[in-house]
Amino acid sequence: MAKTKKTPRPKARLPKGLRDIPAAEIRAQDAMLRTIREVYERYGFEPLDTPAFEYTEALGKFLPDQERPNAGVFSFQDEDEQWMSLRYDLTAPLARHVAENFESLPKPYRRYQTGSVWRNEKPGPGRYREFVQFDADTVGTPTVAADAEMCMLAADALEALGIERGDYVIKVNNRKVLDGVLESIGVTDDSQKLVVLRAIDKLDRLGTNGVQLLLGDGRKDESGDVTKGAGLKSDQVSELMEFIEQAAASAENMKKTAAAGDLFNNEVDQSYFLLKADSSYYKSDLCIAGHNELEEIRGLVRQASYGMDRIVIDPSVVRGLEYYTGPVYEAELTFETKDEKGPPVRFGSVGGGGRYDGLVARFKGQPVPATGFSIGVSRLYTALSTLGKLKGTETPGPVVVAVFDKNCMADYQKLVQTLRNADIRAELFLGNPKNMGAQFKYADQRGSPCVVIQGSDEKAKGEVQIKDLVEGAKAAASIASNEEWRSERPAQFAVSEDKLVEAVREILARHES
Amino acid sequence: MAKTKKTPRPKARLPKGLRDIPAAEIRAQDAMLRTIREVYERYGFEPLDTPAFEYTEALGKFLPDQERPNAGVFSFQDEDEQWMSLRYDLTAPLARHVAENFESLPKPYRRYQTGSVWRNEKPGPGRYREFVQFDADTVGTPTVAADAEMCMLAADALEALGIERGDYVIKVNNRKVLDGVLESIGVTDDSQKLVVLRAIDKLDRLGTNGVQLLLGDGRKDESGDVTKGAGLKSDQVSELMEFIEQAAASAENMKKTAAAGDLFNNEVDQSYFLLKADSSYYKSDLCIAGHNELEEIRGLVRQASYGMDRIVIDPSVVRGLEYYTGPVYEAELTFETKDEKGPPVRFGSVGGGGRYDGLVARFKGQPVPATGFSIGVSRLYTALSTLGKLKGTETPGPVVVAVFDKNCMADYQKLVQTLRNADIRAELFLGNPKNMGAQFKYADQRGSPCVVIQGSDEKAKGEVQIKDLVEGAKAAASIASNEEWRSERPAQFAVSEDKLVEAVREILARHES
Repeated sequence: MAKTKKTPRPKARLPKGLRDIPAAEIRAQDAMLRTIREVYERYGFEPLDTPAFEYTEALGKFLPDQERPNAGVFSFQDEDEQWMSLRYDLTAPLARHVAENFESLPKPYRRYQTGSVWRNEKPGPGRYREFVQFDADTVGTPTVAADAEMCMLAADALEALGIERGDYVIKVNNRKVLDGVLESIGVTDDSQKLVVLRAIDKLDRLGTNGVQLLLGDGRKDESGDVTKGAGLKSDQVSELMEFIEQAAASAENMKKTAAAGDLFNNEVDQSYFLLKADSSYYKSDLCIAGHNELEEIRGLVRQASYGMDRIVIDPSVVRGLEYYTGPVYEAELTFETKDEKGPPVRFGSVGGGGRYDGLVARFKGQPVPATGFSIGVSRLYTALSTLGKLKGTETPGPVVVAVFDKNCMADYQKLVQTLRNADIRAELFLGNPKNMGAQFKYADQRGSPCVVIQGSDEKAKGEVQIKDLVEGAKAAASIASNEEWRSERPAQFAVSEDKLVEAVREILARHES
Repeated sequence: MAKTKKTPRPKARLPKGLRDIPAAEIRAQDAMLRTIREVYERYGFEPLDTPAFEYTEALGKFLPDQERPNAGVFSFQDEDEQWMSLRYDLTAPLARHVAENFESLPKPYRRYQTGSVWRNEKPGPGRYREFVQFDADTVGTPTVAADAEMCMLAADALEALGIERGDYVIKVNNRKVLDGVLESIGVTDDSQKLVVLRAIDKLDRLGTNGVQLLLGDGRKDESGDVTKGAGLKSDQVSELMEFIEQAAASAENMKKTAAAGDLFNNEVDQSYFLLKADSSYYKSDLCIAGHNELEEIRGLVRQASYGMDRIVIDPSVVRGLEYYTGPVYEAELTFETKDEKGPPVRFGSVGGGGRYDGLVARFKGQPVPATGFSIGVSRLYTALSTLGKLKGTETPGPVVVAVFDKNCMADYQKLVQTLRNADIRAELFLGNPKNMGAQFKYADQRGSPCVVIQGSDEKAKGEVQIKDLVEGAKAAASIASNEEWRSERPAQFAVSEDKLVEAVREILARHES
């Protein structure tokens, strides 16, 4: 280790915003991914994997700022000085893949993909710079039947994950409706429009007052930080707020009707649509086109038996991303959970998506309509974990075969192998074996169901001792020496070697029940 | 799409050395990862995930060149100018994790991890810059029982993946033996030693002549490229070659004996060990220590019933990485496959590992002995795929419900949903529905078992038409219009709507058998 001396010791630490994921979360997340995959497969989607990074220009159009390659994304240069970036979502790589392989793909192309994405943004509590998404997209079809299907897919995926009907809702809107409203009130500048959309997107969190301020001059939050507003004139703000409030009222009305068990009430269901009769800003062609598409989606999902408890039309839904061009959807958890200390918490959005007819066109020049839905897996894990919906994904710890005599390692290894061959998690204690108490403590730390012990007496008799750890856990911690163990032997029993597997299986079955 | 006009269209392409992974490979790889995970779990290992990138200094010691952060790895700077790099293996992040969480981890700590790693190296055929590894490591134990276990784990994992006994071998050596030999013949310089080890590592590929040249002045390959040699003197070269040839002969002898069915022949099994009696370079303390450890590993695996067909001691095994300090192992596929055109191909190494007692010490200052095994998943996929061992991971395509009349989309969607609710992959045709032939062609491209069709006649009778695609594939391709379809109807039949699920299940069952 001559080299170690030359340089000071590095610190063992992660860059900010990154984290290691512990065993229980990995197992639960694996189970979640399998469940989501089954639903996506059932809908006819096919898996695709793309690399972790791409040319920045291939991801580029929707980056926060193309001139600063490290803003929003993590970027680095190839040896020929071309910029590459870690993917920040799974949609931009899909657009590149489709454009690159357009001729050979079935059209429409239905693909699902799961994996990490990376954001070079300020981390915060629960906000990491690496997290997992699970997307399904249909590329190459303009029909809103594809959008309707995304909403049903989202509902089915959440239910498959154990979220009960009534505890979630899929909200659907159409960007064309909002675009039409904004056009009607004279908001035509692209960057101003984006600020307006982001303001409306905060309705849930800030309420109508907060949104109103953000539409106008801006808003000062509790900490004194000022967020600049969209700078709309006061008559623009009031027209837009009227729209937002009507939309919210319509959604609220649907929620109440659904909660009362009336899931297919056409009148309530269409209330968002009836608004347009007496609102000037609803009369634009864009608004009407948007409404017709929403009405088609509504018809498809209702006829497939998805009622207002599962999928609702909600004209206040925005989705922040600039690239949506038609229907947008948001999957929301609606139940409240109580932290022991704090006020009730609503998880809110755990996924969303929409139609993005321009994303593939960036490469191809010709329009390739597409629509997709994305689940925030890491966020949903937190929600399911709080809900207690992750039971059944725990794995019992391994049976630990203790080392009583260092010269008998090969005998112990044989016992371990016998258990493993019977498909039982098992391991030889590989730490310092001088202290039996330490071995019990290790087994306890690992969540082992039992410890198998074979001293020379047992070996002579062709027997092993099995110690049930759940029953004997407390007593074991105080045992320090082999001699003491011999005299006490709490919660343990002897079986002949050839009954080892059977005896361990009994203990495992007892612990499971 | 105003912005599209401002900038030229980007090219839809990936950076060199990267690739998209198609559906069949993803499904097969998922099945492989599940199988490997089951084996690792059975051995008592627990999963861990770490982020894709770390501080370069945390990965740093074993980078090719610490002064050039982009040599070998992909690196970028944080906003506070600290260098970070994409992980190039899963061992360095483990060492960081253990050092960071030392107090709270059970000791020994057994963890498994799978995920992508990235190498900023020259790509080539089958050599990508992103690939998947699957590692198991035991940290915090000096006993070679942990190393013996790694060898058994490797053998069990390969067999669980469907590789038959006799088609693979786990080769074990001890770095101490080689270090002792090199010490005896006077090779003490660290960088010279590394060149020597790399030369020996090429024995399989270059033969004894090639290795001999690389130990001396160097070697010119067929293309005329010259590789610089280790610069050993001729007596050093001949002593080392004697060792290598004896080692290879011993391994060859074992292979023959095992192939003859004599799996536990002690004399042959220990032949590597007996060499030391009459070889001066075997008399160093390091060599003797190394041999004793190998003998202990041999005893443990043989008593656990792993014969010479599965695990052999082979003193020529090197493993390139500088950080190994004791036992090293290599998992090799031994069967040959024939490409239709070329000569027979041997896959060779699909995994390996060894003991690295210094890696955690970089952070901690105190030694933390560890050993681990890593499977090259992408490489092993290629091997299994060639072997035809991936059968059973194919997923049938979705049932396609055709669109006969655009005004009946909601009816078709209901049929789709009926199939999905019965756990059958199904989808509504979302492309341009004007041409029935195109819909059949799409279904065929998707590998669909059948197409479900409902015209107004069928709707009136409460029936659907089901077209078996495997039987009718050829006839269907030539059908262009709805009218033609009505008159021909090849390989298809009518069932009442309520028998849809049953009829589709029958077709699926027929196609599976």
